[in-house]
Formats: sequence, structure tokens, C-alpha cells
Amino acid sequence: MFFNLEKKDTATSARAGTIETAHGKIETPIFMPVGTQGSVKAISPADLNDIGAQIILGNTYHLYLRPGMELVARAGGLQKFAAWYKPILTDSGGFQIFSLAELNKITEAGMKFQSHIDGSYHFFTPELVVQIQRQLGSDIMMVLDQCIGYPCELDQAAKANEITIQWARRGLEEFHRTESIHGYEQYLFGIVQGSIYPEIRRQSAVALMENDFHGFAIGGLSVGEPKAAMYEMTGVCTELLPETKPRYLMGVGKPEDLLTGISLGVDMFDCVLPTRNGRNGTVFTPDGALVIKNAKYREDFSPIDENCNCYCCRTFTRAYIRHLFQAQEILALRLASLHNLTFYLKLMRDARQAIIDGNFANWRRAFLSRYQSSKETDGGTGDF
Amino acid sequence: MFFNLEKKDTATSARAGTIETAHGKIETPIFMPVGTQGSVKAISPADLNDIGAQIILGNTYHLYLRPGMELVARAGGLQKFAAWYKPILTDSGGFQIFSLAELNKITEAGMKFQSHIDGSYHFFTPELVVQIQRQLGSDIMMVLDQCIGYPCELDQAAKANEITIQWARRGLEEFHRTESIHGYEQYLFGIVQGSIYPEIRRQSAVALMENDFHGFAIGGLSVGEPKAAMYEMTGVCTELLPETKPRYLMGVGKPEDLLTGISLGVDMFDCVLPTRNGRNGTVFTPDGALVIKNAKYREDFSPIDENCNCYCCRTFTRAYIRHLFQAQEILALRLASLHNLTFYLKLMRDARQAIIDGNFANWRRAFLSRYQSSKETDGGTGDF
Repeated sequence: MFFNLEKKDTATSARAGTIETAHGKIETPIFMPVGTQGSVKAISPADLNDIGAQIILGNTYHLYLRPGMELVARAGGLQKFAAWYKPILTDSGGFQIFSLAELNKITEAGMKFQSHIDGSYHFFTPELVVQIQRQLGSDIMMVLDQCIGYPCELDQAAKANEITIQWARRGLEEFHRTESIHGYEQYLFGIVQGSIYPEIRRQSAVALMENDFHGFAIGGLSVGEPKAAMYEMTGVCTELLPETKPRYLMGVGKPEDLLTGISLGVDMFDCVLPTRNGRNGTVFTPDGALVIKNAKYREDFSPIDENCNCYCCRTFTRAYIRHLFQAQEILALRLASLHNLTFYLKLMRDARQAIIDGNFANWRRAFLSRYQSSKETDGGTGDF
Repeated sequence: MFFNLEKKDTATSARAGTIETAHGKIETPIFMPVGTQGSVKAISPADLNDIGAQIILGNTYHLYLRPGMELVARAGGLQKFAAWYKPILTDSGGFQIFSLAELNKITEAGMKFQSHIDGSYHFFTPELVVQIQRQLGSDIMMVLDQCIGYPCELDQAAKANEITIQWARRGLEEFHRTESIHGYEQYLFGIVQGSIYPEIRRQSAVALMENDFHGFAIGGLSVGEPKAAMYEMTGVCTELLPETKPRYLMGVGKPEDLLTGISLGVDMFDCVLPTRNGRNGTVFTPDGALVIKNAKYREDFSPIDENCNCYCCRTFTRAYIRHLFQAQEILALRLASLHNLTFYLKLMRDARQAIIDGNFANWRRAFLSRYQSSKETDGGTGDF
């Protein structure tokens, strides 16, 4: 069975489960470090194994442009290419075309866009996007979707959603028409869109649920809308989506957003926040996020988090890490990224344990009370 | 005993020995990875331990400016600050003032210079440089020297050398006047200067040898002079320097330069070449250096060096590493640096073993014959 729902919280909609793929099991709720171009920035696969990462994300848009899916396929798939032998989820490219590519033109047929690297023209169809992900060999694939910005008029959201639903069906047909290239099973998720309009979100979810997707993503959030709207839309979707399939809230977010997502019934998350903020010198602790470059850490010879068991915290002081950032040393990027990913993965493990123990709501309250007591930083943007 | 000479080659002047410091033994000949600002660029202390690094180098000039020696001292010394618990050698800053700093003005008293970071004015004396290194707590310290460029007139070289000898004596006096701050023994090396003038090199060596330095560095080479001159000057120095003390050829160089240095009786080397070239995508193999970004490696699914046991070669293909460079992924810098340092350290271990086996000349010939058969690259500049 692809997804096994192990435990449901009673006070909230939180769930604990297991996803089983050819490359191993994933215990949910789970955070997926983002390996945009086939590498989680500044982090090695050995590092990821050390900190207990169970699944990473790759970006179809980026890998299609560079190094190209044919090369990845000839390498034996993205796992072998990147030497990461645990599960990989790839997105569909829809969000990157929306946010990165130039001159994107969307018709029912697909999306025309210009590469952000060399300006070359490309055309993504729902079928091609499945074919690319077959070549990449990701364990979990995403259908092509049309992501829209915020704010967005109702009729625009409705129209984009219609296309997204058509594309989802076409993607699923292509999925069934084709087979795995690399000799192991792959899975396909649909993506619920609909901006901040509950009715469109519901239509989207209901239409997608008529198809045999292996799971459902909630897309088009964390694009500038108010937090309350993001949470509301997430709840609208998870209320409708089948309990027996995993739910993935795309591109979210800050620690508190993950916990809210979990309480609304989300199982999977990805975000560049821990690695990007790490590279910018913002590090997460149970007492809130710290801007490690601040002068107050100049002579702070304690670790970032004395209870964290990552290599960074076991080995180095805040003063040294601050020095590395001041001196623009590459090691700084790695250490801060490693610590932040460790923090996110532990947060998910702790949340899962709390759900299993029937104590999620209390645990979450205690975590947030301590985490939000510090006002040094809110951890930067969680926009994408 | 600080230095133990274990074996002398008969066909060349090569030697195998052991240096003993408070932070452990160093088997010579040795290559010292450069940790300019208290971090070997893109490499962690755990990486350095994995690849068998025995000693690293720190730059007094850089650490003085940032984070400052007082902070390093309060951290318990550079070993504790950087979490590298094996030996550290620090240079004196003379070379960086020569090559990096602005408006440096040299008098008998010392060197006035402007920081390359913020333009602030500083004044280094031979005494201060020893005091700084006491605070840093390096196992092996260097006296302040006046490095001169190439070409350089005889009288200019002679004058600079006179100052360097005076400064060496003053540095040694300061060394004896002061004590270790961090509770373990430190050692002080003199630096032979003299540009490409054999007579000045000899005068310099003889004058320095009258003092009880623990070892001798050969400085002011690899600054643009012809290779033949560099080798000749090295030989002029090692012929005179006492057999019972280690010799350190500063800032050299390419693999072939290290082997020539060894054959001339040098025990210690440092150079940014393996890490800098690694960051530029040039990697070393027994068949010569490769420019991994070249298109020919696009679909090369073999490791950089199939006989290398570093994490990079055990784990990743040339195609993937090329992709990381193309995609400007930070992991590329680390993997190429790690591999190149592994190559350099193994080269030194193999040279040492060949000396012990009485087979150095043959081993060197065989290595160079294979190494120089490839004409893809000469491994870039070894200028500093």
C-alpha cells in the first residue's frame, strides 16, 4: 500500500502515516529538503542521511533545462545521478514557469516559456511533464498545474483551475499510458488550485478526486496571500480530500506554518526556507530564529542550539559561525543549512511522535509558546 | 624532540621525518591545507580528518584583521575556535601585506599597511607578530619577514634580507620573552629570503642558523620567478640548513613542484592550489589535472579518479560534478576541494613511503611520467 494512515489526532485534524516507495518508507508528517537542481544547496547526500532526511524534492523545470532529463535518465535516474538513494519527489515545473521563467504564455495545450538561463523557448504540456519525470525517475511525480499569483480575480482563478483540472486528467492518462523507465514504481499526485476562493478550491478538489491519483498536493498558496487565507484554503482542501491518500502543502513554510498545516491534516511539506535562510545567516532554535551575524553573537561560545545533535551544534560555536559569515567562508552556508534542516526534520519527528502519543495539540502549544517568545526575527519570508 | 629525521634518500636529498607538537605528530614530507581565515575553504574539520590531514595553515594577517586575535584567544586558541584539534601552523603576515594589503610601508621598525577589508591602518612589528601568534595558539609560528617581488635588484634583495634577519632575531627574542597563553608548547621558524640571488640566500640561511629556531622556512619563492630559479634557490637553502630541523617551502605549489621540493630536501609545503583550483573546477588525477567543466565530461559516469577513496570519488560521477559546476551549486566547490586535498595528501604519503622504501627517485619518475602524459591542463597557477 502506498499510504498507510496510522493515527488520527482527536483534538485536531493531524495525522501520522507512512508512505512506501521503491526507495524506502517515509514517515509522515514529513518535511522534504529542496534539491532544486539535483543538490540540496550546500549539503551532501551523506549530510542528508546523517540528519535523517527521508525524501528530498527536485525541480522538473530546472532539471529539464540543466542537465536535461535525457542525461539524468542515462545516469540511471535522479537517485543514481545525485547519489541520493532514498525517495525523491519532483514538482511539475508549473510553479517555476510562473515565478522564474520569462514570457510564459498559457493555452489549453500547455505552457510556453523562456528559459531563465539562456532565454531559449520551451513548451511544457501535461504529457511532456510526465515523460520528463519518467526519465528523472522520481518516486513521486506531480501533474502540470497553472499557478496564479495573489491577488487574483475570481474568474481568473476559475479559468486557471479549469485548465489545471484538464491538465491533471491528461497527465494521469499519460502516466497510465507510460511505464517506469528505471524499473521501479512511480506515483502521481494531482494539485488542487483555486487561489483564495473556497468554492473553486472545493471544485478543484472534487474534480481531482474523481481520478486515481496517489495523493494530492495543495498548490498556489504562500504566494503573497494573508496567512489566514492560506490556512483557510488548506483546511478547505483537507476537509474534502480522501483520508486514505497523502496531502502535500507545496512550498510551505515557516515552522509555525508547518505545525498549522499538520493540525489541518497535511502530511507533506517542502520549502527552501531552512536552506535559504541558513545561507543568509538566519538559524532556527526552539527559542526562535537567530540572525547569527548579529554583533551579540561575536563572543558567544555556545552552540546555536545546545540540545541539537547536528554536526554544526556538536562542533562549532555561534562566535565561530558568525566569523565564517563575516569572512564569507563557504563552510558557513553548509553549517547553517545543515542545522536548519536538522531543526525542520526534528520538528516533524516530534510532531509525528506527539500525534502518535495523542498529545499533538498540547505539544504544539508548548512548542509555539517557547518558539515565539523571541522577537529577534520571524525567520524571514516563507514565500516560496 | 620536535623533529625526528627518520630516513634519508640516497639518490636525492629527500627525507622522511616526524614533527611532534602538542596537538599531535606530523609525518613528513607533509602538505598543509590552507585555512586562511580559520577555515579550509568549503571543507569542514571532519572532512579534513577523513582525508588524513595532519596539520593545517592559518594566516596571521587575516585572523588579526578578522575576527581578531583577542577573540580567538578568548575562544581558547585557534584549534578550539575552528574545532580543528590537530596541529596548526600560522604564517607571519609578511606575505599577505606584500600581496594583499594597500600602501604598505616598510621600515626597520616594522610594516605599516592598510587593511584590504576596510582600509584601516595597522603596524606589524616582529614582536607583535609573535604576540598575535601566541594569542592564536598555533603550534608552529613564523617570524615576520619582508617578502619581495620578482624581478628584484640585488641591492634591494640584500637590503630586504638584512631587515628580515633583524626581524627574525627580534621575533625570536620576543618568543623567548613570552610564554604560551594556552598551556602548550609553541615553536618558531625563521624564514630564509634573498630573491633569486644564491649569495643572499646563503647569507640569509647562515645568519638565521645562528639562532635557535625550531625550523626554517624558505620564503619569497613562487612569486613569478622562473621554475628553474625557484628550484635552484630551494637547493641552495636546503644544502645549508641543518639536517636536524624541518624545512618548509612556503606557498609551493603544483604536484610536480612538491616532488622536486622533496627531492631537494624540503619537509613541509602549503599552497592554496588544490582548494582554489578545485573551486575553479580543475581536479587532479594520477593522469594529470582535468577541467571538469569541459563538455567531454558531460556524460562521463566514472568518478574523477577511480582509485581515489575520497567521498567525492566513492560517491559521485564526473557528469554529476560537472553538472554541479554548470549549475553553480555550492556542493561542487566542496567536492572538488575535498578530492584535490585528498590527492595532495596521498601524494605526500606515497612520497614518504617511497623514501622509507629507498625507492623515491624511481617512484617520482613513474608518477611524473604518468601525471605529465595528459595535456588537458597544467593545473593552473601555483603562484601563491
